[in-house]
Amino acid sequence: MAPTKKGIMERLNAGEVVIGDGGFVFALEKRGYVKAGPWTPEAAAEHPEAVRQLHREFLRAGANVMQTFTFYASDDKLENRGQSLKLTGAQINEAACDLAREVANEGDALVAGGVSQTPSYLSCKSETEVKAIFKKQLDVFMKKNVDFLIAEYFEHVEEAVWAVEVLKATGKPVAASLCIGPEGDMHGVSAGECAVKLVKAGAQIVGVNCHFDPLTCVKAVKMMKEAVEKAGLKAHYMVQPLAFHTPDCNCQGFIDLPEFPFGLEPRILTRWDMHQYAREAYNAGIRFIGGCCGYEPYHIRAVAEELAVERGLLPKGSEKHGMWGAGLEMHTKPWVRARARRDYWENLKPASGRPLCPSMSNPDSWGITKGDSGLMQQREATSQQQLKELFARTKSN
Amino acid sequence: MAPTKKGIMERLNAGEVVIGDGGFVFALEKRGYVKAGPWTPEAAAEHPEAVRQLHREFLRAGANVMQTFTFYASDDKLENRGQSLKLTGAQINEAACDLAREVANEGDALVAGGVSQTPSYLSCKSETEVKAIFKKQLDVFMKKNVDFLIAEYFEHVEEAVWAVEVLKATGKPVAASLCIGPEGDMHGVSAGECAVKLVKAGAQIVGVNCHFDPLTCVKAVKMMKEAVEKAGLKAHYMVQPLAFHTPDCNCQGFIDLPEFPFGLEPRILTRWDMHQYAREAYNAGIRFIGGCCGYEPYHIRAVAEELAVERGLLPKGSEKHGMWGAGLEMHTKPWVRARARRDYWENLKPASGRPLCPSMSNPDSWGITKGDSGLMQQREATSQQQLKELFARTKSN
Amino acid sequence: MAPTKKGIMERLNAGEVVIGDGGFVFALEKRGYVKAGPWTPEAAAEHPEAVRQLHREFLRAGANVMQTFTFYASDDKLENRGQSLKLTGAQINEAACDLAREVANEGDALVAGGVSQTPSYLSCKSETEVKAIFKKQLDVFMKKNVDFLIAEYFEHVEEAVWAVEVLKATGKPVAASLCIGPEGDMHGVSAGECAVKLVKAGAQIVGVNCHFDPLTCVKAVKMMKEAVEKAGLKAHYMVQPLAFHTPDCNCQGFIDLPEFPFGLEPRILTRWDMHQYAREAYNAGIRFIGGCCGYEPYHIRAVAEELAVERGLLPKGSEKHGMWGAGLEMHTKPWVRARARRDYWENLKPASGRPLCPSMSNPDSWGITKGDSGLMQQREATSQQQLKELFARTKSN
Amino acid sequence: MAPTKKGIMERLNAGEVVIGDGGFVFALEKRGYVKAGPWTPEAAAEHPEAVRQLHREFLRAGANVMQTFTFYASDDKLENRGQSLKLTGAQINEAACDLAREVANEGDALVAGGVSQTPSYLSCKSETEVKAIFKKQLDVFMKKNVDFLIAEYFEHVEEAVWAVEVLKATGKPVAASLCIGPEGDMHGVSAGECAVKLVKAGAQIVGVNCHFDPLTCVKAVKMMKEAVEKAGLKAHYMVQPLAFHTPDCNCQGFIDLPEFPFGLEPRILTRWDMHQYAREAYNAGIRFIGGCCGYEPYHIRAVAEELAVERGLLPKGSEKHGMWGAGLEMHTKPWVRARARRDYWENLKPASGRPLCPSMSNPDSWGITKGDSGLMQQREATSQQQLKELFARTKSN
Repeated sequence: MAPTKKGIMERLNAGEVVIGDGGFVFALEKRGYVKAGPWTPEAAAEHPEAVRQLHREFLRAGANVMQTFTFYASDDKLENRGQSLKLTGAQINEAACDLAREVANEGDALVAGGVSQTPSYLSCKSETEVKAIFKKQLDVFMKKNVDFLIAEYFEHVEEAVWAVEVLKATGKPVAASLCIGPEGDMHGVSAGECAVKLVKAGAQIVGVNCHFDPLTCVKAVKMMKEAVEKAGLKAHYMVQPLAFHTPDCNCQGFIDLPEFPFGLEPRILTRWDMHQYAREAYNAGIRFIGGCCGYEPYHIRAVAEELAVERGLLPKGSEKHGMWGAGLEMHTKPWVRARARRDYWENLKPASGRPLCPSMSNPDSWGITKGDSGLMQQREATSQQQLKELFARTKSN
Repeated sequence: MAPTKKGIMERLNAGEVVIGDGGFVFALEKRGYVKAGPWTPEAAAEHPEAVRQLHREFLRAGANVMQTFTFYASDDKLENRGQSLKLTGAQINEAACDLAREVANEGDALVAGGVSQTPSYLSCKSETEVKAIFKKQLDVFMKKNVDFLIAEYFEHVEEAVWAVEVLKATGKPVAASLCIGPEGDMHGVSAGECAVKLVKAGAQIVGVNCHFDPLTCVKAVKMMKEAVEKAGLKAHYMVQPLAFHTPDCNCQGFIDLPEFPFGLEPRILTRWDMHQYAREAYNAGIRFIGGCCGYEPYHIRAVAEELAVERGLLPKGSEKHGMWGAGLEMHTKPWVRARARRDYWENLKPASGRPLCPSMSNPDSWGITKGDSGLMQQREATSQQQLKELFARTKSN
Repeated sequence: MAPTKKGIMERLNAGEVVIGDGGFVFALEKRGYVKAGPWTPEAAAEHPEAVRQLHREFLRAGANVMQTFTFYASDDKLENRGQSLKLTGAQINEAACDLAREVANEGDALVAGGVSQTPSYLSCKSETEVKAIFKKQLDVFMKKNVDFLIAEYFEHVEEAVWAVEVLKATGKPVAASLCIGPEGDMHGVSAGECAVKLVKAGAQIVGVNCHFDPLTCVKAVKMMKEAVEKAGLKAHYMVQPLAFHTPDCNCQGFIDLPEFPFGLEPRILTRWDMHQYAREAYNAGIRFIGGCCGYEPYHIRAVAEELAVERGLLPKGSEKHGMWGAGLEMHTKPWVRARARRDYWENLKPASGRPLCPSMSNPDSWGITKGDSGLMQQREATSQQQLKELFARTKSN
Repeated sequence: MAPTKKGIMERLNAGEVVIGDGGFVFALEKRGYVKAGPWTPEAAAEHPEAVRQLHREFLRAGANVMQTFTFYASDDKLENRGQSLKLTGAQINEAACDLAREVANEGDALVAGGVSQTPSYLSCKSETEVKAIFKKQLDVFMKKNVDFLIAEYFEHVEEAVWAVEVLKATGKPVAASLCIGPEGDMHGVSAGECAVKLVKAGAQIVGVNCHFDPLTCVKAVKMMKEAVEKAGLKAHYMVQPLAFHTPDCNCQGFIDLPEFPFGLEPRILTRWDMHQYAREAYNAGIRFIGGCCGYEPYHIRAVAEELAVERGLLPKGSEKHGMWGAGLEMHTKPWVRARARRDYWENLKPASGRPLCPSMSNPDSWGITKGDSGLMQQREATSQQQLKELFARTKSN
């Protein structure tokens, strides 16, 4: 069955919408199989039934891409995580490929092998050393014959370019996705310039994933598209954002929010937010549209439902969902049945149920916070003695 | 292995904490297997792998009870749901029992067969007819030899009493749980009086589930306990609340919130809210502590972690979690590592990331809303003509 | 002119609406003439032009009562305030009476002499001593021949009863107003019982002022009215609430909110909130309707505008206001002109512009706060050692 | 006394801080003397006691400038306002000058005659015609011998330049203040370029007033300062912002917020916000620091208190205020006394008491709103028939 499927480039070149899957580390953390902090994917080998089930749910939700659950599965990261694993990196990567392929075969999905940023780069290892790290994961992907490759979750475009160069050598289609927003990468390279570098390095698909909410990510990809087109280059575009609202993020994204990672619940997007996201991404000319941390299967299903006409089909999972809440027509209470309509959900401003909580936070490293505390120190320096004298003088007027 | 397990009454009589599982219909709706509106559990037969996996995740999170996924699986409800199912009620109920038993056998958990409120009662069928409905599900539970029985999610204590009477006849231990809050049932029977009626009908465990947030539910069960004790009766107590904050609910619970059921995301409780819930429930003398709609496996795990010392063990799932965020000590960024401590998470007031949304809602049928609109009509009645004349007079002064 | 005015009892007995003035200490604190903390009214003598102007603004807004600015002007309070005043209590009280009379004579308003709770009562002085304090202020009111008397802002009904007994002896009409909410006074006497005691002591008008927002105060006065009627007694009712939203108050009222007194701005009521208040108060049978802390002249004007038909006139100040925003019809921008209609303002949910702030606070002495910290201590007591052992055991499974 | 005062240029050239007054139209609207919509200042002649009192309160709060209450007092505006005034423009302007001078003479304040934008400009009258309008008000200012002139509240820099040219001809010092934010004027001229134009036209002091909150206004003035310095020009800087939080404004400022003008209460700044504002403005090199709409006397006093050391004195009004809440040391309740400290108020995040309201609004003309509705129309266009067919197909799988 697999050989007859259209490849990623065929689909994108034909103008088709390709729906990505959602984020595995967050979803599996909530299900009890990933540890927040190290965020490593040993569950692929330890608990294959849990990973397989999540793949299946995303497939059912409409995903056309099964990303191998190999996030942070480079050897340097696995060693680094502070506790010995009973499994080798190769074992984890191989198990992840097998699971992705098994489920991809159950529907119209491709397998994408993924590499992501490495501790080696952050600790200033050489280009050769960092590339060797990527190469090791890649060997597994080639052995398992994945359909295409993704270099994703890079904060520094330089490292992403290195990854693309390694992946490119295989001849497989290569996608490259940074975890940056409209302000650019951590070295101050603009989103547009990042994209141009990645395309020049050989990426056929470029975009962003993680760290910011959908509309912010779409904005960043738009900037990428403009820059790539201005440079006279050609590419396809992808976006796989958070399923959390992050209007208050700085350039580091949701990592810096005080709620990361165990208090993000009130920020979770609804399925209706996803409709808006899917439409905005589509209108921006992005055709590979998926999700990252926070995405549950129903979020991906909402993307697929919004783009059902463009794709010419609804996902399997829609048999358990009515467009725009239509399933509520079968609810017991009449006033809930009255909610079975699109404008109800499009206009709803959902309450948090948390009156003691704010609606936005100060990220840990915000400029304004620093400014404030600078301000406060300055004020302290004002002699308290001077003030007392002034008050005494005022009263005696 | 199963025969050697202690039964529910042995455990409770010994003062042990029994941890319940979480809500299946909401969790499986998000995974794509349950349709919101009808909320029926045909997935037990249609997609057993998805239901089995969720059972396993709750077991791994520490649950001692696997409730059969038979919510709304009475024949009258299944017929009522507006679209023909290819499966009989018996097939669904049997499949659900098998899945619960299979996973219960993998750990220290009991199987509880559950019945819930029926359309027959709401459409004023006779006691005999309603009891016949319960009897039909019960036949399956007896054939499959569940460990105990739960009558849960009843808004009217009268129907719950009928259910208890039917279940009681089997000789199995019987728990009874209403979906009411501190204001009592839909006929105005107080929470305390409801509990007394249920105990008199033969329930050995009484409590509430669904419809309200944890602290509200604990409050209602406290009222039940006081009344039962005051009546000179004896019982054990259970609570399985929502994982949504509902400070703004009226007596109908979260059904009446405008966000029900597709906009509840900002209300989802964090794992830290669960610690507080578990402690409050324990302090109130409740020993069967679980969850209902909105509970994901990590919520149950948090209950188990809060009560780890009392239970003398941590759940399996804690191998992928550090107490109070300890796993963050292995995070890449130093300022995230600084969050690996209890007081950080206990004091966090998480932001919604939704500055255009309120923190509370008006339930659809709130008295105040009615009052307002009455008020407005009254004002409209004030003659606009009279006002114009007054203004003219004022200006000419 | 004054002699021909109808007295307070004539008006109320005839079923007329009597509009009170707003709060002087808060308004004059913002204008720079009252010090928050002591809250004493020496401005009556020190800056008569400022006090006279505020009286005039309330008169113009529709007030029928000019309360003498004698709040906390008892001798024991004035001595107590920590800094020597250059003025005697008698001087302040006399100046206040003169200002109220001067402005009352400019329109259809009566002068009410007011006494309030004393430090003497709080420090457990005898009934005789406390009554002597009231008597001293009263001597000035009688010399200045005020139209009626108000004992207001009492937290303890016992002290209020003493005040009423002293005031009653003059033969003037007496009103009594407690600063309590629906939960009753600080000694746990219910709102209803308080009212009965005050009426029996001789008050012809009873009600509440300050400490809570309008709808909460109206609720408390309703409870008073029910109890008085149930006791077979007769009285008129008054209400003079805060102009701050206080949904999160405990029984001590706004004093316990962390925002008191210098951060209350986001809680200030709009003029539209006042329309609702005035209507609710009127519908509850209350006929003396005014305001306390936070009321600015435009708030009182809104009360007068809501009740314009019932009173048969609009206030002078309405010449600079259009009903329900009608004045905006003359605004430059067309989209602002579109706001010149009642339903726009009635339905507006005004934003705070403060996304980092919550919508409710924990009062300083809330039970829940205490509960929480008790909870935390309990948790701390759980041996950290025990937990570590449990974790070790879990990992080795 | 007046002749011996230092002039505005002497003060600024000497590096002194000059404190402005607050906004008259909003303050007097709340007091019942200005009508929202037309916003004209006839009260200067009709109710001089009210205007005089407000001047006095600002003087007492520390203001060094008494602006004549002549906002929108140009003849074209007064005629335009939809109802005949009994007063001529000259009468109003003269009365306003007399009141400002009378109160300025009571302390260390200067009188500034002010002109603002005209309906003539908006209706495309010629430069000559518009200048003639300014000239008419100016004649009064010269006759009354004001100390300096301010052209303020201009949305279009072109009109402001014309005003400066007219004012400049008198030889008096001229200040020019636009009601714009960091995004520039309504014709898209940047804030920096606006400032350069105004300085070149002869303004010795430039800045912004109204329309945005303090920190936004300071940001805009910083941009002006940078541009003026970059152009090799010299000027002094002024800022007179709103006392409302406006994080959600578009380039039109608070006029476009749905709360304008009758629902702005929850946005009112606290005195502590003013401390931060005053410090930021001072640090930015701005030396003429005042307020506009929403400023009450206590807001100006807070500015004066923050800058007390720099100015070498506290305002008169501080005799009724303790620095950072010190007056609370004399409060009755011990837990309120505990609030008499700076860090308490600096760190307070004040609650709105409005759980049903959001923290931010969509301005009437926001791009995003437009985007949304465009989006919705697009979605509607998707054939409902197509969707139904897709659903039918999905179910039959």
